[in-house]
Amino acid sequence: MALFETSEYQARLEKVKDRMEKAGLEALVVVDPANMNYLTGYDAQSYYVEQAVVVALEADEPLWIGRKMDISCARFTTWLSPQNMLGYPEDMVQSRVKHPMSFMAEVMKARGLGKKLIGLEMDAPHFTPRSCEVLMAGLPEARFEDARLLVSWVRNIKSASEIALMMRAGKIMEKVMQTAIEATQVGVRECDVAAAILYAQVKGTEEYGGDYTSFEPLICPGEKGAAPHLTWTDHRFENETAINFELAACVKRYHCPMSRTIYLGQNPPKRLTETAKVTIEGLNAALAALKPGVTCEEVDGVWRKAIAHTGIVKESRSGYAMGIGYPPDWGEHTCCMRPGDRTVIQPGMTFHMITGIWMEDWGFEVSDSVVVTEKGCETFANFPRQLFEMT
Amino acid sequence: MALFETSEYQARLEKVKDRMEKAGLEALVVVDPANMNYLTGYDAQSYYVEQAVVVALEADEPLWIGRKMDISCARFTTWLSPQNMLGYPEDMVQSRVKHPMSFMAEVMKARGLGKKLIGLEMDAPHFTPRSCEVLMAGLPEARFEDARLLVSWVRNIKSASEIALMMRAGKIMEKVMQTAIEATQVGVRECDVAAAILYAQVKGTEEYGGDYTSFEPLICPGEKGAAPHLTWTDHRFENETAINFELAACVKRYHCPMSRTIYLGQNPPKRLTETAKVTIEGLNAALAALKPGVTCEEVDGVWRKAIAHTGIVKESRSGYAMGIGYPPDWGEHTCCMRPGDRTVIQPGMTFHMITGIWMEDWGFEVSDSVVVTEKGCETFANFPRQLFEMT
Repeated sequence: MALFETSEYQARLEKVKDRMEKAGLEALVVVDPANMNYLTGYDAQSYYVEQAVVVALEADEPLWIGRKMDISCARFTTWLSPQNMLGYPEDMVQSRVKHPMSFMAEVMKARGLGKKLIGLEMDAPHFTPRSCEVLMAGLPEARFEDARLLVSWVRNIKSASEIALMMRAGKIMEKVMQTAIEATQVGVRECDVAAAILYAQVKGTEEYGGDYTSFEPLICPGEKGAAPHLTWTDHRFENETAINFELAACVKRYHCPMSRTIYLGQNPPKRLTETAKVTIEGLNAALAALKPGVTCEEVDGVWRKAIAHTGIVKESRSGYAMGIGYPPDWGEHTCCMRPGDRTVIQPGMTFHMITGIWMEDWGFEVSDSVVVTEKGCETFANFPRQLFEMT
Repeated sequence: MALFETSEYQARLEKVKDRMEKAGLEALVVVDPANMNYLTGYDAQSYYVEQAVVVALEADEPLWIGRKMDISCARFTTWLSPQNMLGYPEDMVQSRVKHPMSFMAEVMKARGLGKKLIGLEMDAPHFTPRSCEVLMAGLPEARFEDARLLVSWVRNIKSASEIALMMRAGKIMEKVMQTAIEATQVGVRECDVAAAILYAQVKGTEEYGGDYTSFEPLICPGEKGAAPHLTWTDHRFENETAINFELAACVKRYHCPMSRTIYLGQNPPKRLTETAKVTIEGLNAALAALKPGVTCEEVDGVWRKAIAHTGIVKESRSGYAMGIGYPPDWGEHTCCMRPGDRTVIQPGMTFHMITGIWMEDWGFEVSDSVVVTEKGCETFANFPRQLFEMT
C-alpha cells in the first residue's frame, strides 16, 4: 500500500502532466528514485539496478519498470495496478551482453510510446550514459529531450501531508542532535558517536520510527573541520577540539537535516567563538528574511551581508531545496540560495539553510531545515543555535 | 593520509595501466566512487556531485577532479600530490547554466589529454548522460570508448591487506547478526531492530569501528519476505512470522554481507523448514565447490543441482563478486554465479554467495561472504547456517 492516498499521487501526476504539455513532451522516463517515489510511492533499495517510472500523457497511470524480482516491492509500496508493473528477467541484471534498458524500450513500444517525444532526466542520479544509449537505440522512431528537473520542480512545493512527515523528521532530529552532543566526549571514538546517532535516527520516537538518511552522518573533528564530506573513523576525540556534525533525520524518505559544532574543552579559540557568533546571527537574519515573495538570491544576500564585515568568504550556497531523498542526496537540485537564483519563494517550499564555514584547517557549521509558511518560515526541529562547549 | 601504503596504490595503478594499454586507451576517466577509492584512497560522501579520477598512461599519478570544497577531503584521504587535486568552483554545483564536466574537460586538455583515446565508465553509478555529453563536447578532438569494468576487474582479486579488512568486517558481521536475532521479538518494532543493527555495524569491536554499508539493512517480515529490497517500517513484529534479514558490516569501505531468516513463534510452516534445509545444503555444496580453477557457472550449477529435486525455481544468481562499495551497491558487477558466466575462480576473489528464495508471498534467505583461498574458500564471518526459531 502506498504511503499517501491515491488522490495525492494523482494530483502530483496531473501537475507533472501539465508541465509535460507545456514542454511539448508526450512521455517522460523518470529515473531519479526520489521522483519515482513521489509519483508512485515506490520505495525500495533497488536503485542499484535499472528501473524507471514512465509517465505517458495519454495514460491514467504511470508504468513501473524494473527488475522482475522487484515487482513485489512495487506491489507493497505503490498505488499502481498490477498490469502497470513490468519486470525484466534476471539474465539482464549486470550482464555483459544484455541491458535492461532494451526491455524498457520494448515495453514503451508495446504501450504505444515508440514514436513519441520523450523526456529524459539526463542528469539524474542512477541514470548512466549506457542506459540512455540503449534506451534511445531501442526506440529509433522516438525523439528525445532533456526534461531536466521537471518532476523535481513539482516536488518543490510540499503538500500538508508531506510537511507533516517532515515535522516528524524534525522531532527525531532534535533527539539525534541531543544524542550527538551527549555522546561526544574526550576519549570516545568517532564510530561510537556515529553508532549512537544512527540508533537515534532510526529508533525515532515512541509514536513513529525513522528511516535511513540519504547522507550518512558527517563527523569532522579538528583539522577535518575543513573537509565538509568526511564521515567518521575510529579515532578517539581529543581535548581542545571542535567537531562539526552535519546530520539528519528521515521519515518515509522525507528529510530534516541539521548541523551544529561541538567544542570539547575549555576556552575555545577566539576565531571559533567569533565565527560562531556572526554565523548564527547571519543564519538568524537569513531565516527572518525567508518568506513568500522574496527571491532565493535575496535571502542569500542577507546572509552574505551579515558576515561581510568579518572578512570571511563563503563560496558555497547558503541553502537549497530538499525533501524526499535517496542516497546519495537529499537535495532537490532545483532552487538554492546563491547569487543569480531568482526563484521566488512560495509557501510550502522546504529548505536546508546551511551556513557552514570551511576554512583551510578548521570550520564551523550551523544549519537548520525550514518550511516556508504564509508569512515567513518555520523550522522542523527546534534546537538551540550555538557553539556547544562540552568540558 | 591514505588507508594503504603508497606502494599498494601504485601496484593497483600499474595493473590498470596494463589493461589500458591492452585496450589501446591512453587515458581513463574513473567515476565509480569505489574505483576512485581503489586507485587513490579517496573516501568522502561527495559522490552526489560530479567528480572523477583521471588516469593517464603517461602520468605517474592520477588526477583527482571534483568540487573545490572537497579538495580538503582528497587531501585527508588520498596519496596524491597537491598539484594533482583540482576543484571546480561553487557556481558550477547543480547549476542550471554551467556544468562541472566542462571544467573537467579543460583540466584534461591542460594536462595534454585533449587528443587522446579516452576510456569512460559508461555504466558506472553516479555518471549521468548529461555529464558524459558535456565532457565529450569539451574534448572535441579526443576519441572515446566504453572502458566498461576495467578497474573493477582489477579490484576483483584482493590483496592480503584488503582481505584482512574484510576479515575485520566479518568479525563485526557476526555481532551484527547476533544483535538482529536477539532484538527481534514479537511486539518489537522493525525500526527498533534496524536501530540496533546499525548501532552494532558502526560500533564495531573494541579494536576497530565499522563504516556505513552500501545497502541499508533489508528487513522483510511475513509476506514481505517475497520482496527482496524493502528496508523497514515501524510496524511491530507479529507471532508466527518469518523475517528475512540481508545485512552487512563494512570496514574502510570493504564489505561483508550476510543473510539469515528468523522465525518468530513455534512450529514454523513445513514449507519454510524444508526450504531452509535444502537451501542451506545447497549453499554448503556450492561453497564446497568454490575453489580456484572452476568457473562461476559451475559453482552456480552445483547450487541449482542441489535444489533441483524440490521444484523451487530461483531465477536470480547465486553469488556475485563484492568488496569495496558505496551506496547504492557493494557488488563489483564483474563475475557472478549464474549460467553463462565462465570466469575462472582465482585465489583472492571475494564473493557474496546469496542463496535466497523469493516466492509469491514468502521467502527464505541464507547467504555468506567468502574469499577464495589456494585450495577452496573461507567465510569472513562464522555464523550458524540455520533457520533461527525464536519463541
